[in-house]
Amino acid sequence: MRRVAVIGVGVTKFGKHERTSSELFAEAAADALADAEISADRVQALYYGNVVGSETEHQLHTGPQAASILGIPAIPTTRFEAACASSHAAFRHAVMEVGAGVSDVVLVGGAERVLNVPTPDSTEYFAYASDAVWEQTLGLTFPGVFALIARAHMQKYGTTEEQMAAVAVKNHKHGALNPKAQFQKEITLEQVLKSAYVADPLKLYDCCPFTDGGAAVVLASEEVARKSRRPVWVLASAAASDWMLLGDKRDLSRVPATERAAALAYKQAGLAPTDVDVVELHDCFTIAEIVATEGLGFFEPGAGARAAEKGMTSLGGRVPVNPSGGLKAKGHPIGATGAAQIAEIVTQLRGDAGSRQVSGARTGLTHTLGGNTATVLVSLFGRG
Amino acid sequence: MRRVAVIGVGVTKFGKHERTSSELFAEAAADALADAEISADRVQALYYGNVVGSETEHQLHTGPQAASILGIPAIPTTRFEAACASSHAAFRHAVMEVGAGVSDVVLVGGAERVLNVPTPDSTEYFAYASDAVWEQTLGLTFPGVFALIARAHMQKYGTTEEQMAAVAVKNHKHGALNPKAQFQKEITLEQVLKSAYVADPLKLYDCCPFTDGGAAVVLASEEVARKSRRPVWVLASAAASDWMLLGDKRDLSRVPATERAAALAYKQAGLAPTDVDVVELHDCFTIAEIVATEGLGFFEPGAGARAAEKGMTSLGGRVPVNPSGGLKAKGHPIGATGAAQIAEIVTQLRGDAGSRQVSGARTGLTHTLGGNTATVLVSLFGRG
Repeated sequence: MRRVAVIGVGVTKFGKHERTSSELFAEAAADALADAEISADRVQALYYGNVVGSETEHQLHTGPQAASILGIPAIPTTRFEAACASSHAAFRHAVMEVGAGVSDVVLVGGAERVLNVPTPDSTEYFAYASDAVWEQTLGLTFPGVFALIARAHMQKYGTTEEQMAAVAVKNHKHGALNPKAQFQKEITLEQVLKSAYVADPLKLYDCCPFTDGGAAVVLASEEVARKSRRPVWVLASAAASDWMLLGDKRDLSRVPATERAAALAYKQAGLAPTDVDVVELHDCFTIAEIVATEGLGFFEPGAGARAAEKGMTSLGGRVPVNPSGGLKAKGHPIGATGAAQIAEIVTQLRGDAGSRQVSGARTGLTHTLGGNTATVLVSLFGRG
Repeated sequence: MRRVAVIGVGVTKFGKHERTSSELFAEAAADALADAEISADRVQALYYGNVVGSETEHQLHTGPQAASILGIPAIPTTRFEAACASSHAAFRHAVMEVGAGVSDVVLVGGAERVLNVPTPDSTEYFAYASDAVWEQTLGLTFPGVFALIARAHMQKYGTTEEQMAAVAVKNHKHGALNPKAQFQKEITLEQVLKSAYVADPLKLYDCCPFTDGGAAVVLASEEVARKSRRPVWVLASAAASDWMLLGDKRDLSRVPATERAAALAYKQAGLAPTDVDVVELHDCFTIAEIVATEGLGFFEPGAGARAAEKGMTSLGGRVPVNPSGGLKAKGHPIGATGAAQIAEIVTQLRGDAGSRQVSGARTGLTHTLGGNTATVLVSLFGRG
């Protein structure tokens, strides 16, 4: 496989938009192409993530739609859906296309529009990523899934609601530094703890919001990347799955798919968790961040909650996690999330992140989780 | 890129089923693995096509669900959606994974369940593959799209309703020889011509049915394939797109995406249309088959209708098209269709097609179209 680099990134403002998801993607893609200093007609394929578009927009077949809006209708286009990990899945397959020598320039990204439907509806649509027969029929939605995970972690390791709240406070603090974030405001521990229960023990401020937005990255072969302004190299991109049903998992306090994908990615890159300087990971709920920092090998199983509380994952801490604000504060436009995480890591490794910059960051990691912890993607990136 | 082969195929009976799409896929996949004489634990990735599952089954994230049912939950799984071309898109990306040396054994396929919802609903869900803002709002559904294409072809080339009907008669004749087909009965030209108009000039018997079903193929690297019983080699797999909106297309009597994908595929394989012995192509409507036989280079633009009428595309004709019965008679379980076409061509090239066998077939082609002719996949296969 050839070396592959990200040579351009683009992200829309996250929040509420009055545009279709394909239009949101087009904005991000135009920014990514401009950043790469490459024209759209050099793009040889489009890898695209979108999740609930058929429900919220009555729109399937978003691959060619997005390519049409960009004025490049003839190239191969594919839509990927792996629940919340969709555009990270698209990215991994795109890395294969460029790595295999099939193409030299590929556009990857995703978009989602969900704030045009009422919250009960979007909650239901998200739940379609759970099993329809055995889980949705019980009324299980995602806050419930992660509440079960939180309870398992609390019971096994003594994790507290205060420790989970510390993750929300930290990510809002980071998000306040990100002009693209949906919530650019700090919150206090007390605000989190006093917010209403959504699914005990998870409260409103433990949950990420619904978000409209788009994100795009331009992937290039080594030859093209060498001529670009500031390439960031893809050191690894790995995927793993796990049992679809929560009831088939042995220990809800851990996410085997994260552990598997991380092991594959570290092996591909020849790196260890201690080599990672900056992380964007899937904090759909505060407990999800804690479990992910353990599964990715930054802390022992059970030690993630204390680490968050002690500030070890804050900007300036041992392993800064979600400097963008994460899904929690930056927002979670499902189909765009994986690509937006990659865009943040590229920005960090280029030293372009301004007030939220992790100083001296040379190696970054992105982690995206789909469904009931059934899909996980992990990628590693390196500077120069 | 390494050589890649199909070493096993499986298809469920097409028609109405009282099972989930993932269960339908599992049946096809088990058959494909048994045919390949390979155990499920050797599968390194799952490439999966499904289209309207979120509407008809309230089920997204079907990749890990299908892998879980097969008892192989840890492998990377990805769901592809490219409207009706979904599992052919999955196949092309899987060929890249094996060709690039990332994996040696990959399972590819798809499934769909649509007969559990009323026909007006499934017609609406299919229409989500058209543009929501500019086309669905006008009430455009797929019979309407292909009626416009038929009118353009009639006006430009003098194509008649009788010629289109000949395609239906031929595919039903083929389907009667296929025990897996949804409709195993012959029909007469008069029956087609007297059937009710669905979208003038297309009548009921010009349209393929709604179908439940699953299909799977096992892909392998050359090393693994050499040890298998009867590998069929993938000579090419290509994709192309076109403008999403019908209104952006210059000439509705042609499908540029078919012409582009075919040119790429013939080039990859070093073959010409005259080298092809047997074809499975996307006959969602009779006119679609006529236009596809032209776009694939078997007949000049405008000559496809006469060729069908003269029996040149029938079993025993110059280029047998859709010996399986095609979407028209075999059925069209959207997410499964591309993989089912590949399964038929593999069966033909192995000489296993029984009473519908194209004698001496050595080279086969599959063609799958998605949406308003905005996505097309073309693959070529060779024996021994």
